[in-house]
Amino acid sequence: MAESYSVVPIGKVRSALTDPADAPRQGRDTGTEATLEIDPAYAEALSGIEENERLLVVCWLHLAGRGRLKVNPRGDPASPARGVFATRSPLRPNPFAIYTVELLEVRGTSLRVRGVDAVDGTPVLDIRPHRPSLDG
Amino acid sequence: MAESYSVVPIGKVRSALTDPADAPRQGRDTGTEATLEIDPAYAEALSGIEENERLLVVCWLHLAGRGRLKVNPRGDPASPARGVFATRSPLRPNPFAIYTVELLEVRGTSLRVRGVDAVDGTPVLDIRPHRPSLDG
Repeated sequence: MAESYSVVPIGKVRSALTDPADAPRQGRDTGTEATLEIDPAYAEALSGIEENERLLVVCWLHLAGRGRLKVNPRGDPASPARGVFATRSPLRPNPFAIYTVELLEVRGTSLRVRGVDAVDGTPVLDIRPHRPSLDG
Repeated sequence: MAESYSVVPIGKVRSALTDPADAPRQGRDTGTEATLEIDPAYAEALSGIEENERLLVVCWLHLAGRGRLKVNPRGDPASPARGVFATRSPLRPNPFAIYTVELLEVRGTSLRVRGVDAVDGTPVLDIRPHRPSLDG
């Protein structure tokens, strides 16, 4: 399975969070607000986005390590180590974050959202409507 | 934003579905069963996975086109075209599928699941527990 695929950032997270150590464990717990600055080349791909109250946003956690197979849940060394696929740790072979967010405002190709706890500059890879019947 | 990142398959979908044209529009609608054959190199990363009834599974839709910015919803030419980020179309710049699945059985590094409608051979990129408080 040596084959790999390339993912292309479609934009970046703009956030007051700059240090991963300051990031809350899960954005939705805390209501963190952030702006998704989408590359104007993808403006047309955003057509109709404003009709959605909730979105799934996929980010690439470019600062996260990829080599771990086990982690201590919640970073607590006292917790027994678990396989990364049995956790929501950012440390995983493909360090995606998948956020369920509230869409607060659309201004051109900038989307103001609540529920992304990634640090400023984190690449955004995908946006799609959240569907409770599929995702809930 | 010319920078790109590499994603590495951690396994493959084994399914009776072989032609994307036969794939139901959304796996969860139909209860499609499939097996995720995870590369034994990631066996340790699956430790504890059996404790989860529901998982999020990220696949890479390797057969999907990436160049479209707008699509006709549900492939219906009569539907007004919408931006791909305002749809769940597989045609998107980074063709991820994100499935919420039921975990039916774990056998070694093979996971039998309900809710993946990707064709046989589709690369699997990530698995994590579904958390209603985060994903619902």
